[in-house]
Amino acid sequence: VKPSGIVTLMTDFGLRDPYVGMMKGAILSVHGTARIVDISHHIAAGVIGQAAHILQQTYPYFPKGTVHVTVVDPGVGTERRPILLVTRMHLFVGPDNGLFWPIIEACKDAEVIHLTESRYFLRRVSETFHGRDIFAPVAGHLCQGADPLDMGPVIHDPVQLKLPEPYRKAGSLYGQIVRVDHFGNLITNIRRRDIEGFTAGGRPVVRIGDLLIEGIQTTYAGTPEREALALFDSSGHLEIAVNSGRAVDRTGLDPALTIGREVMVSRARDDGRQP
Amino acid sequence: VKPSGIVTLMTDFGLRDPYVGMMKGAILSVHGTARIVDISHHIAAGVIGQAAHILQQTYPYFPKGTVHVTVVDPGVGTERRPILLVTRMHLFVGPDNGLFWPIIEACKDAEVIHLTESRYFLRRVSETFHGRDIFAPVAGHLCQGADPLDMGPVIHDPVQLKLPEPYRKAGSLYGQIVRVDHFGNLITNIRRRDIEGFTAGGRPVVRIGDLLIEGIQTTYAGTPEREALALFDSSGHLEIAVNSGRAVDRTGLDPALTIGREVMVSRARDDGRQP
Amino acid sequence: VKPSGIVTLMTDFGLRDPYVGMMKGAILSVHGTARIVDISHHIAAGVIGQAAHILQQTYPYFPKGTVHVTVVDPGVGTERRPILLVTRMHLFVGPDNGLFWPIIEACKDAEVIHLTESRYFLRRVSETFHGRDIFAPVAGHLCQGADPLDMGPVIHDPVQLKLPEPYRKAGSLYGQIVRVDHFGNLITNIRRRDIEGFTAGGRPVVRIGDLLIEGIQTTYAGTPEREALALFDSSGHLEIAVNSGRAVDRTGLDPALTIGREVMVSRARDDGRQP
Repeated sequence: VKPSGIVTLMTDFGLRDPYVGMMKGAILSVHGTARIVDISHHIAAGVIGQAAHILQQTYPYFPKGTVHVTVVDPGVGTERRPILLVTRMHLFVGPDNGLFWPIIEACKDAEVIHLTESRYFLRRVSETFHGRDIFAPVAGHLCQGADPLDMGPVIHDPVQLKLPEPYRKAGSLYGQIVRVDHFGNLITNIRRRDIEGFTAGGRPVVRIGDLLIEGIQTTYAGTPEREALALFDSSGHLEIAVNSGRAVDRTGLDPALTIGREVMVSRARDDGRQP
Repeated sequence: VKPSGIVTLMTDFGLRDPYVGMMKGAILSVHGTARIVDISHHIAAGVIGQAAHILQQTYPYFPKGTVHVTVVDPGVGTERRPILLVTRMHLFVGPDNGLFWPIIEACKDAEVIHLTESRYFLRRVSETFHGRDIFAPVAGHLCQGADPLDMGPVIHDPVQLKLPEPYRKAGSLYGQIVRVDHFGNLITNIRRRDIEGFTAGGRPVVRIGDLLIEGIQTTYAGTPEREALALFDSSGHLEIAVNSGRAVDRTGLDPALTIGREVMVSRARDDGRQP
Repeated sequence: VKPSGIVTLMTDFGLRDPYVGMMKGAILSVHGTARIVDISHHIAAGVIGQAAHILQQTYPYFPKGTVHVTVVDPGVGTERRPILLVTRMHLFVGPDNGLFWPIIEACKDAEVIHLTESRYFLRRVSETFHGRDIFAPVAGHLCQGADPLDMGPVIHDPVQLKLPEPYRKAGSLYGQIVRVDHFGNLITNIRRRDIEGFTAGGRPVVRIGDLLIEGIQTTYAGTPEREALALFDSSGHLEIAVNSGRAVDRTGLDPALTIGREVMVSRARDDGRQP
């Protein structure tokens, strides 16, 4: 795939320290006209699953030939391998700790390369900041048109990561909260297709903590202000929201412990009463 | 106006979620060499007036032909129209909810276009994220040189928004706090011209909460450390500050409720005593 | 040095207000194809030493010919001079308040220019925002290839700034915490070379507050989870960290007052007991 010259960055580094700036400098020192886009630098420290989930939903909006650098890397400096994932459309650079597993699983013709050729790295590689010293310059070289196959051997055993999947039990569908967004909306791992198959012929009823919500809306503004609603978010996942309010403060659960909490979807009975 | 290839973004999305990154991807997927600049993503959720105020003060610093995308959009997915505002120098893309009204009022030859031509949108438009699905790709096409008039019909009834204006009463000038900045400075809606006309022939005295400030300074550092002062900010608005301190914590008002609070300007009497 | 077309920005402005966006607009209005990179906008308000420390560690990662704009400027509008520092590889623009002193000291052939030629500024220069009105447009002109020597006279008395240096006393090495990063790691001003000379022939023992740490590791992950460790960070400074935890919460010191606190390094005695 021909490089687009665009590099995205996602890390758990925050924006207070100069770490992200150093990575951008290292990319631009290799390929001075790279166009660098931040996806987020506020991944929870070391939470690989959160980064994997966000990356999977975000990368398709970028043009073909984009290099995605993702650094959530609690094992930096240990034996964990630095890798490059090549799919038909995109390139991904980061540590081999499961970050890219959902994409590897979804793209059957993907190739994973163990980055071993140090001529693509900074001259001095620290033990604690491979984002700057390995992944950033590799991304710069990929933008320059370097051949991924020159960067190391193909491997067939990348680290796997299982994101939690929704499941059915006793006539209900169970999922979990995977993200709380800036607006306090609760994003679940339940997709439109999961729920559509499940609730055919009955209106869905969604429960999370103290909230019980009937029906699925299409917009926030169609519900009275301050009332809770369920809808499919812009990535096709079931979301619990409050019109002009924050759902995270309305479930009766500890807001700091909302991620991972169970969401149950049932079918309303024909007589309109709750199951 | 010839496109500059520059797109600015202002939203209330914050930087934690991938929403801003998705918008950038959608712009770059249309026009891969767009140069994208963030103005702010920390507009208070749904507060259209704050975004309108900041946009009006910021856009003139950008070059001619810049596309400004502003998304504070509590009515996303409802009947509110997506619009494009074309002035002699700049282009503005966002929801028709008043965001652009101060600019429309100020630029008499401005044209407003209702964005109806879905060939300029992403192929699948969600109900909840028009920033990514409509506004971002439209901005990309504008950078590419697409003709605004091909994007939909001209309309003459954009939603109006009245920002609060200062007024005079009983020998005093009354305005309000419209923004508290990162340094704790209080920015008012009183412009240099409002106050200069008003206080000709007498020294101004500014009151906000418990603070009473005599005279208007030109710099922060001209006042003793930790003391309050008034000055005109870099956009020509009256500002209350504390040298090497935070004015927001010194008014005796609840810091969280400072926006919207009244500021009174009087003239000192000739004998130097307060009015 | 030939301009790279890249401009870095570091300020204490935060990202909530439009100030950084205005600066970017002012740069792009001079040089529309400038590539602008944020190093950090979260320098503590007015803390020149923090910005100087970060700049010195970050700028070398950028390509030759990069213009670095640094604005931590409590004396804006007073007699303090706006300056341009030219080294063999990089250009630096900002206020003459010590920000660039560590770089001036380290680069013996550096030249400092007092920015006096107002044709390189915005037409109207405010008293309170030289970042936008002077430094940003000067950076744009430097990207365009303007000659630094046309921008004002060379000066030989830039303001000096002494960053705290580690010192030895009574058989121990004393330094201090200069930064707490996003992960809660404590970065000291003790460099690898300071400690290697000092501890030759004995294992180092590091003390900060209640923590006493033996030995220096090479990675975070080599220490049991939740345990404290010392290592050299990616810039070669001694760092105190906790594997999968936050060192700043583990010293027994007030986290808000950790910066500036003393760090002591001793040598373990040959019998392995503490000194």
